[in-house]
Amino acid sequence: MSDTVTTDLVTIDEIHAAARRIAGHALRTPLLPAPWADTAGAGSDADAQLWLKAELLQPMGAFKIRGAINAIAALDPAVRAGGVLAHSSGNHAQAVALAAKFFGIDAHIVIPDNAPPRKIAATEALGATVELVPLQQRFTRPLEIQAETGKPMIPPYDDRNVIAGQGTITLEIAEEAPDVAVILVPVSGGGLISGIAAAAAAVLPNAKVIGVEPELAGDAAASFAAGEKLTWKPEQTARTIADGLRTFSVGDLPWQHIRAQVHDIITVTEDEIRDATRQLTLRAHLASEPSGAVATAAHLHHSAQLPPGKRVAIVSGGNIDPAVLRDILS
Amino acid sequence: MSDTVTTDLVTIDEIHAAARRIAGHALRTPLLPAPWADTAGAGSDADAQLWLKAELLQPMGAFKIRGAINAIAALDPAVRAGGVLAHSSGNHAQAVALAAKFFGIDAHIVIPDNAPPRKIAATEALGATVELVPLQQRFTRPLEIQAETGKPMIPPYDDRNVIAGQGTITLEIAEEAPDVAVILVPVSGGGLISGIAAAAAAVLPNAKVIGVEPELAGDAAASFAAGEKLTWKPEQTARTIADGLRTFSVGDLPWQHIRAQVHDIITVTEDEIRDATRQLTLRAHLASEPSGAVATAAHLHHSAQLPPGKRVAIVSGGNIDPAVLRDILS
Repeated sequence: MSDTVTTDLVTIDEIHAAARRIAGHALRTPLLPAPWADTAGAGSDADAQLWLKAELLQPMGAFKIRGAINAIAALDPAVRAGGVLAHSSGNHAQAVALAAKFFGIDAHIVIPDNAPPRKIAATEALGATVELVPLQQRFTRPLEIQAETGKPMIPPYDDRNVIAGQGTITLEIAEEAPDVAVILVPVSGGGLISGIAAAAAAVLPNAKVIGVEPELAGDAAASFAAGEKLTWKPEQTARTIADGLRTFSVGDLPWQHIRAQVHDIITVTEDEIRDATRQLTLRAHLASEPSGAVATAAHLHHSAQLPPGKRVAIVSGGNIDPAVLRDILS
Repeated sequence: MSDTVTTDLVTIDEIHAAARRIAGHALRTPLLPAPWADTAGAGSDADAQLWLKAELLQPMGAFKIRGAINAIAALDPAVRAGGVLAHSSGNHAQAVALAAKFFGIDAHIVIPDNAPPRKIAATEALGATVELVPLQQRFTRPLEIQAETGKPMIPPYDDRNVIAGQGTITLEIAEEAPDVAVILVPVSGGGLISGIAAAAAAVLPNAKVIGVEPELAGDAAASFAAGEKLTWKPEQTARTIADGLRTFSVGDLPWQHIRAQVHDIITVTEDEIRDATRQLTLRAHLASEPSGAVATAAHLHHSAQLPPGKRVAIVSGGNIDPAVLRDILS
């Protein structure tokens, strides 16, 4: 890759600044040993031990609060006072709603009207102004609002402040597990893995950052293998149970980070995601959503494909539909 | 009460010593904010905020690892080398098994043969020697083994080293939430609340320690109200879904602590326990067992009965049967 590209990557200074901004609002999540997941005897990696970075314990239940706070904190205070705008049907909606609440400002969130009622209710419960729109207006309507009101949009992943916020996870891992060999990270739009990899390049240079995707929404893995950013069809990515990872393509800025700083991206099957969700719930006592369990699934089911040594899996979110959890426990 | 009784209570020095012994083996569990559980508008206690002490994240899934490690650490090394003995069908069995593993010694665990197969398997998976006996021999058989082998018994709660180990929870709370007003604690044999109250008397003198029991196994609440230690019938306490709290009576040493240092003991209904388990799973993303959810149930459903101010609920364990969790999520 060219130098011009690399110089645009998020820097460790930006990530340290994000850590100062989110302190006291985002949780410093625990890094939990998972001795039940030891893969001794599972091949050449007999000594691989798993630790879980429990991002699902964040208020609102996902890592996304880190990036949302940092992006809002980075706004000009006069602009910020007028409120912010976002579109999402998932954890990003709740993250922006809660982050706006911390700053005492309004969050205007555009949600497709086919989103699950419980996600809409959760976003409203955090104090946001929710606007429901037909699915086909989910990208156009926010642009209209932006043009009308001048409110700044908080993007879900293709933004250097959002990426820097997610990167604070690595700073915490580095303090508690400086000998980590592998960090396993769920990949959707790529903001989480970009931040984690950008920070690791500076503070954990020996750790390999490896992305994990559902096989049925494996656009980033396919892109990584092909060396060019590919886009999948919505009807393809919609097949996975991991509803937070159905993004069709990683963002442009995330793609630059993935190309430059990520060691590999691998995929896991639906059965493996379900098994990991079940084991996280029953053995780690973490009620993960399927999207949050893919990194753990990689350790449990693809251990031989991964480098040996101490592994950290990001358990990225916990907002699961009770009917889905019930089914997974059957 | 008489001075003779009070002087036998576990001291803060014993609890500090326990903290040094368990460091690196037991987890320093996170204290998690639970803004979703704010009881604003629920009465005179409008400002009561809940924090969760997530003991279910301990390796083996419950606080009991603290007391088990401390009790084994306190043994004479020559005696300890010969292994330890315990009887339990629940979390104490797994705690002693795991603590023995940390010390590299054998744990001989006597379990009634009607115990759930998954609990037996979990204890064996931690390396213990499990002996299944008919239910009526569960107290006599361990005594026989003790007589034959001289192995020391690790009691589940009626033991000052076990109580001191559980008391380390308060030291952690005091560092992170020195302004806590109320600590809500599940009560079974009374070891957990005794340790927490003994430490609180020294390091959090303004905090009120309040026990919580299922109404259907309310022997400790009844004892507290009566001012004398009462014993319920097994067929009474067996009615609650909170299978870790079916003890018929608190222990003698715990009773001394409860009389001297506990502010109150209240009860919660089965529906309240089920609701709290559900909310912990879906909103805090902590897959609690019903026994682990009773303290949270007290905050959610009996807020007006409790003193105002910052509350910490101990989420004591997470070893739930998947069928029970499935049912609770319905």
